[in-house]
Parts: sequence; structure tokens; C-alpha cells
Amino acid sequence: MPKKFDKGITSKDSDYSKWYNDIVNKADLAEISDVRGCMVIKPYGFAIWEKMKAKLDEMFKKTGHQNAYFPLFVPKRLFEAEEKNAEGFAKECAVVTHYRLKNDPNEKGKLIVDSEAKLEEELVVRPTSEAVIWSTFKKWIQSYRDLPILINQWANVVRWEMRTRLFLRTSEFLWQEGHTAHEQKKEALDEALLINDIYKNFCEDFLAIPVIQGLKSESEKFAGAEETYCIESLMQDGKALQMGTSHFLGQNFAKAFDVKYAKKDGGLDYVWATSWGVSTRLMGALIMSHSDDKGLVLPPSIAPIQVVIVPIYKNTDDLKKIKSFVLNILEDLDSKNITVKFDDNDKLKPGFKFNEYELKGIPIRLAVGLRDIKNSEVELARRDNNSKTIVKIKNLSTVIQNTLDDIQKQIFVKAKLNLKNNITIVSDFNEFKNVIDSKGGFVYAHWDGTNETEKKIKKETKATIRCIPYENKFGPGKCIYSGKDSHQMVLFAKSY
Amino acid sequence: MPKKFDKGITSKDSDYSKWYNDIVNKADLAEISDVRGCMVIKPYGFAIWEKMKAKLDEMFKKTGHQNAYFPLFVPKRLFEAEEKNAEGFAKECAVVTHYRLKNDPNEKGKLIVDSEAKLEEELVVRPTSEAVIWSTFKKWIQSYRDLPILINQWANVVRWEMRTRLFLRTSEFLWQEGHTAHEQKKEALDEALLINDIYKNFCEDFLAIPVIQGLKSESEKFAGAEETYCIESLMQDGKALQMGTSHFLGQNFAKAFDVKYAKKDGGLDYVWATSWGVSTRLMGALIMSHSDDKGLVLPPSIAPIQVVIVPIYKNTDDLKKIKSFVLNILEDLDSKNITVKFDDNDKLKPGFKFNEYELKGIPIRLAVGLRDIKNSEVELARRDNNSKTIVKIKNLSTVIQNTLDDIQKQIFVKAKLNLKNNITIVSDFNEFKNVIDSKGGFVYAHWDGTNETEKKIKKETKATIRCIPYENKFGPGKCIYSGKDSHQMVLFAKSY
Repeated sequence: MPKKFDKGITSKDSDYSKWYNDIVNKADLAEISDVRGCMVIKPYGFAIWEKMKAKLDEMFKKTGHQNAYFPLFVPKRLFEAEEKNAEGFAKECAVVTHYRLKNDPNEKGKLIVDSEAKLEEELVVRPTSEAVIWSTFKKWIQSYRDLPILINQWANVVRWEMRTRLFLRTSEFLWQEGHTAHEQKKEALDEALLINDIYKNFCEDFLAIPVIQGLKSESEKFAGAEETYCIESLMQDGKALQMGTSHFLGQNFAKAFDVKYAKKDGGLDYVWATSWGVSTRLMGALIMSHSDDKGLVLPPSIAPIQVVIVPIYKNTDDLKKIKSFVLNILEDLDSKNITVKFDDNDKLKPGFKFNEYELKGIPIRLAVGLRDIKNSEVELARRDNNSKTIVKIKNLSTVIQNTLDDIQKQIFVKAKLNLKNNITIVSDFNEFKNVIDSKGGFVYAHWDGTNETEKKIKKETKATIRCIPYENKFGPGKCIYSGKDSHQMVLFAKSY
Repeated sequence: MPKKFDKGITSKDSDYSKWYNDIVNKADLAEISDVRGCMVIKPYGFAIWEKMKAKLDEMFKKTGHQNAYFPLFVPKRLFEAEEKNAEGFAKECAVVTHYRLKNDPNEKGKLIVDSEAKLEEELVVRPTSEAVIWSTFKKWIQSYRDLPILINQWANVVRWEMRTRLFLRTSEFLWQEGHTAHEQKKEALDEALLINDIYKNFCEDFLAIPVIQGLKSESEKFAGAEETYCIESLMQDGKALQMGTSHFLGQNFAKAFDVKYAKKDGGLDYVWATSWGVSTRLMGALIMSHSDDKGLVLPPSIAPIQVVIVPIYKNTDDLKKIKSFVLNILEDLDSKNITVKFDDNDKLKPGFKFNEYELKGIPIRLAVGLRDIKNSEVELARRDNNSKTIVKIKNLSTVIQNTLDDIQKQIFVKAKLNLKNNITIVSDFNEFKNVIDSKGGFVYAHWDGTNETEKKIKKETKATIRCIPYENKFGPGKCIYSGKDSHQMVLFAKSY
């Protein structure tokens, strides 16, 4: 008996949050684990993450960065060294205090912590690696000749979260963290900006997610940074999502870890630094940016399978004929570096397969039956706009390549339109509150630049300053809250 | 002032252990970190590991395995579930007991563990992931239709080690761990054997390290396994190193986590399982198998840079001419997928560069001066046998490709000869002790199959049974220790 297929996805409009969870679960991307706050990334979800990794890794390497690996644990005394950084992460870190379990004398088969194996110094599971890496950089850096150091690490990190959501906020997550050291302040600033551009290009060109680049306000910047640059995007429910951050750390960590270098022209100085990262959170952004009530929608660049071929047949003879017909298509697409899957699973009916691949966001589905073979054609269905066309075999690989390019483009255009339609410019606080409450999205408003005003606005509306955009489209004005002078409008939104 | 170059490598013969550490440090592979027992893998070392990962990953995927990711933490109750596995790892695990630090009221700027943030249930940092994965498989497996499940994970794991050595034994290490579930016992056994073959092929064809395949004795097998298959190799100092293991887990984990499946012909049964892994330990094996007193020797397949070109010049005009001459070589090699680096660093002299690339094990070094340009030739030096030849430019890429192939082959042949010359067959315990003490290497000897005899031999000689080889070259006989009946000879050695 073929399995029945029931999508059972909550509609996006009725409950966005439940819709998101349904997509993550039913498209087999990830699931909640038996470990509090931690997720299991399932093979299909991990295949998408692997494609993200490969592309980002290529972009980092092309710009001179090298991968390395640093310890998972941060001894408490290193963790404390940069005070603001420590303060920022102390409240949410997993602490290792013992290095052994022993048999429970009171209950056979149970284990308890062995109190004799208490660590002299506690170890923090890295929430981020600045401390461990700067204690290492101290050994690597003596002179200007040792600079710049451009390091990246792919790793797992832990930040204890009370309320978690798959991909968006989990206690353990996967990410890359870049850590660089430079002679000059300007070099470090340029590096932070370069990386923010890499992140932007990656998100827009590969994930088809349009972003806004900007600077974080004082209260939203990374603990220990001088400046935090970021890219922010807008989800379909009108909430903003921080996609990536790139920090200019000034000489803060160099001072905390006493990392000085001999200058070209004599004398010693502290080195300048950056750090930057994106995480499995991008999986959440990818899902929320493009998907619909039928399931995941994937831009072709990031789809582990770009084309799926489903045979339509009545008996094994038919299937045999279709198989030999499809063989040429597979070879042709493969030679053009298009990833294709032929699903000849005999236990499942075509309707079930159609549904499943729709759910999993495969950009193009081909259906091939006996009549198609006779007519030398196949049916091509697009996931993004549900259109179907009949394509002659002789044109197939060209049509597929063009269609993949078009899907990539159209998905981006759609997301860009959503972003554009959901940026509102307001001139007073009443309008601000109205937009935030009803329409949502990004709101441009004048702000007096103080932490105090930012806090009050957040308290009253739950909206925060997502960034001070690079692109300063508006001149000076008056703060919508305090009426004081404002240099430029900034972008507010409710956010994930 | 160009940096001076001092290799300062301890000779292999005078102190093998110090020689090893010198190579690891001076070839910039890894270093001890400020975190007890944990290492920093430096960019050059990590680039080699990345090549290992890429190749293994390709081999796993070609045989139907998929990557996924499971939590870092194992809640204590899951950790306890498979009793033998828990017993095997309880003595060396890092335990998270708290999820927050707070300011030390007695000392400003210091942090202490917040006793109010004690976890209800302790979390073990995974020493291996069977427990977490089988608690997940329980949700994934209902029927025979869900099988087989063929999962691999690239991850960091922690096993608390008192005495550590870079790559060979560190508290945290990187590895891949495969975890599979099957309908039939035979399928699981076949999977364990398939993986052991993949490991063997990887080590021999890519790392150029010959291995012996076999079965572990009862006392040496993985905690929780029915059978452990392994590959063992021999280092240049005559000690054995376990390169990888592949476990047939029987139904042990299925029973511990109650994972049953509905059989095709009705009824329920526990599923059959395997797990298998190789780790950054392979880096240690790679270093110790081939390197010499001049530094690292890398087989071309695994070398991040296969060819380095060093310009020999007096002034910037010369360098310009050499650069334009080299450009064609770079393009030519690049088009043939040979990784090449042109080192035009003006701060370092050729002699320094020669030394450094020798130290880093780059298989081929080309030197190019003005006279070479005039003669349309370059000097080619091989790292493996120190030979130098003059090669005409028109033949260069062919000669390089052939030379790389030959280096790969010769390095393997040399290691294979070392292995062959260091396998001794003994017929009594005195001979056994003599060989183990003086010559070292693998020793074939008859063993009565008991744990007791194995223990006594280990106590008296420090040699352990490395494996019961697949290839049973010798018939039955009498145990060298007890004189009791023995089915076949097994392989003993002192080991890392």
C-alpha cells in the first residue's frame, strides 16, 4: 500500500509561527531533540546548510581568509578578560565543572557526578571564540610581519536560551566566526565592511534574500565591539531578522589579552581587530523569506536537488521504457552541473511524490509518461509560481537552465518587492506606533541617538533599531520620540 | 632584514617523540592551547584536515550516506541508557552542571558559577553520539520502509585525557561518526565491513599509509559494540596506531532505546546497527608515517599545495621577468587541477623559502631564475627523495603530473616496505618479548583467545592485540603464553 500523503501545513495567514514549524518539520529540515534547547538538523536541512557553507567558504578563501580550529572550551579566566564581552555572555553560558561521572552507589545502572573530579577552574562552552582566539593570537603576533591574520572557523557554539525556535534561536547552533588582526585601524574597519559586503552578496545572490546594510546602535552592538555592522532582512510576516554581523573590535581584545606588535617604523602598538559571523539562523531566514502554504520554496543556487524527475507509469514495462528515456536527460543535466534526481521508488505514487517535492521546495519537477516519450517531450512544473509547460526533449537542458536562472531571479524580485512594500517612513510617534502595530515591516524614523530614547521606544512598541543604514537617504530632522535633533533616519522593526 | 631560518628539528633517531612535536610545531600544523588537553589546529594543519574531510565525505556520499547534525550535549539519563557504553565513557567525560556565571561579589571583574543556575539534569559533552542519535532514531523508525538509515556527522567530541599529545590524543578532537540502522543483521555486518574497506582505501590510496584490517579482541572493542573492525598501521618508530574503527553494534542500542520496526512479513523486531569513525588522529598518523628529519613529507593527494615555485632574482626587474614567465606555468598547472603557489614574497630569501617548503612537505618545488628563462627550463626538486632535475618548459606539466603520481606511489611503497620489514612471526613467549623490546613492530603470535592471557601479556610487555587480521595466513597452533589451543595467529604491538 502506498503511503498516504497529508501535508497538513497550517496556513501562513492563520498562524505564521505554526506555519514555520510545520514547514521545518514536514520538509524534513530539523526537529527538536531530547536535549533542552538543542536541535537535530536532518539530512535534507543539513544538505542545504552544506551548500551555504561551501559557497561562503569559497568567498572567504577568495578574499584571503584561512580556516583553523580553536578549542570548544574557554577557561573562566580567559572568558573574564574582555569585561564587556564576558558580561554580555555570562548570563547564558553552559559551564563544565567536572570531568567524570561515577556509578551511583544508591541505584544500580545510574551515574552521578564524581565530586572528586571537580575542575580547579571551570570551563565555559564557547558562546563565541574571541577569548580563546586572542589568547592564541598573543603567541602568533610579534611584529608587523605577522599581520594581517585572517582566520575563519566553522564551529558549534552554545548560548543558553530559555525560549528556543528551530534554526532561529537554539542553545547550540552552527556558525562560522571570522577573527582578524591588523596593523592599522583603517585596515580593520575595511575588513569589517568587506565582510558585510560578502554577507550581503551571499544573501542576495544565493539565498535570494534582499538585505539592508547598516550599523547597529550602541545598545544592539556586539559585547566587546566598537562598531557592529549588520545585514537585516524582512520576513513575510513583517518582522525583521538579523542575518549576519561584522564587528570592528578596535583594540579592545588586543588590550584585554595584551597583544602588541612591533611597528614597521619602530615602537609597539596594540593590534586592531574584527570578528564576524553568520549561523544556521540563515536556514530560518531562507525558509521564512520564500516559502508558501504548500511548503518550502528554494532558490535554485541553494537547492540540494534542482530538478526532480517523476515517472508516470502503470506497470514495470512502462517504467523500464521511461528509465531508458530518462537516462539521456540525467546525463545531459549532469554534464551541465544541474543536480537532478530520478525518483523511481515503486512504493510511492506520483501524486505522493509531487506533494513531497513541492513540500521540499525542489525548483523544477519533470513528469515523464509513455505519451511524453512518443511525443519526445516532458511536462515541466515550476515550484515558485506553479506554472506547467510542455518542453520538447531537444530543448530540455537549455530550457531547464534558463528556467532555473529565472526562478532564482523571480524569487529575489518577489522578496525585494515585499521588502520595498514594507518600508514606511513616519514623521511622528503616533504614526510610528500605528505602523508597527498594524502594517509591521521596517519603519524609517528620526531618532535622537540616545540609548534612553531607544529603550523607551522599545518598551512602548517592542520595536528596536535594526540598523542605521549605510544609505543615508534622509537629512537631519527631529526625533519622533523626544523631539530632539536627529542626524538621519534609522530603521526600526519588531524582530526575531 | 630577511628572517633567519632555523629548522631545529630533533632527529628522529635520537628522540622520536620530540621529533614528532617539532614537526607539528615547525610545520605550523597545530599547537597546545591555553585550554587543558585541547589543541589549536593551525591553518596549514587544518587545510590538510579539510582535504581528508572532502575525500572521505565524497566516499561516504557515494555509498549512500547522508550528513546530519545532532546535539553536542547528552543528558545524563540518555548517556546511561546503554550500560556498557556509559561505563566505557563515564570516567573521561566533561560534565555541564550550570548554565550561568555571575559577578563575583568579592572581586570586581571576576565571575563565579551562579549556584542558582544549576541544571536539574547534568549534560555530558558528547564523547561519541550513539546515545543522542539512538534517542532520535526512535522517532525516525517505525517500519522496514524507514530502513536503512545511513547517517554521518562531522563533529567535535570530548574525552577527558590526562596525558595528551597533539593530534594523537587530545581532550577535544574532530572526527566523523557514522551511525546506521538496518532491518537485517547481515546488512549491518556488511555495512561495518564496507566502511572498514572505505577507511582502508582512503588510508592507502590518499594518505599512502598501508594498513592491516582486522577484528578487535573482546577487551579492545568499542564499549557497547558486538564486534569492532579496525585498520591498524605502523609508525616509523615501530609502534602501531589505530587509524579507524567500524563497529557492529548488534541490537544493543536498539534495545537500550527501544527502537523496533514493523517487519515486512509482520511482527516487530529491534533494528540492527553500526557506528564508525576516524578522527584528527589521522593527522598524527600522516605525520609519523612519512616525515623525516627535514620536516613533513606529504603524499601529493593530500597536500594543500602540490607545487611551489620560488623565484631566484637579484632585483625587482629580474622578479618582473620571472613573474611573467611563471604566469603561463601557473595557468597550465591550474588547468590540470594541480595546486600551485608562486611565492614572490620579497621579504624572504630563496634559501629561507626552500627550507620552509621542505619543512611543510610540499611535494614539488620549482626554482626559476633568469638563466632558466633563457634556456626555457626550470629546476624541479622532489621533497620525498631530495632529487633535483632540470625540466624543459614544454614538458613541464606532463613531467609534474607524472612526478606527483610517482611521489604518491613511492611514498606508499616506502611505508609498505617499512610495514613488511616490521612484521615478525614468533613461536614462543621469549622470542615475543625479545622482538617487542628490541625490534618493535607488529608481532604475529598464537593466542588462546582469552581476556586473561591478553591482560597478562600486556602487563609483562606493554604489547596489546592490535587486531585479529582478516587475512588468516596461519593455521591453528598453541598459545605462546598459556600453551592452550589457538585458532589463528593474531597481531600484537606496542601502540599509540
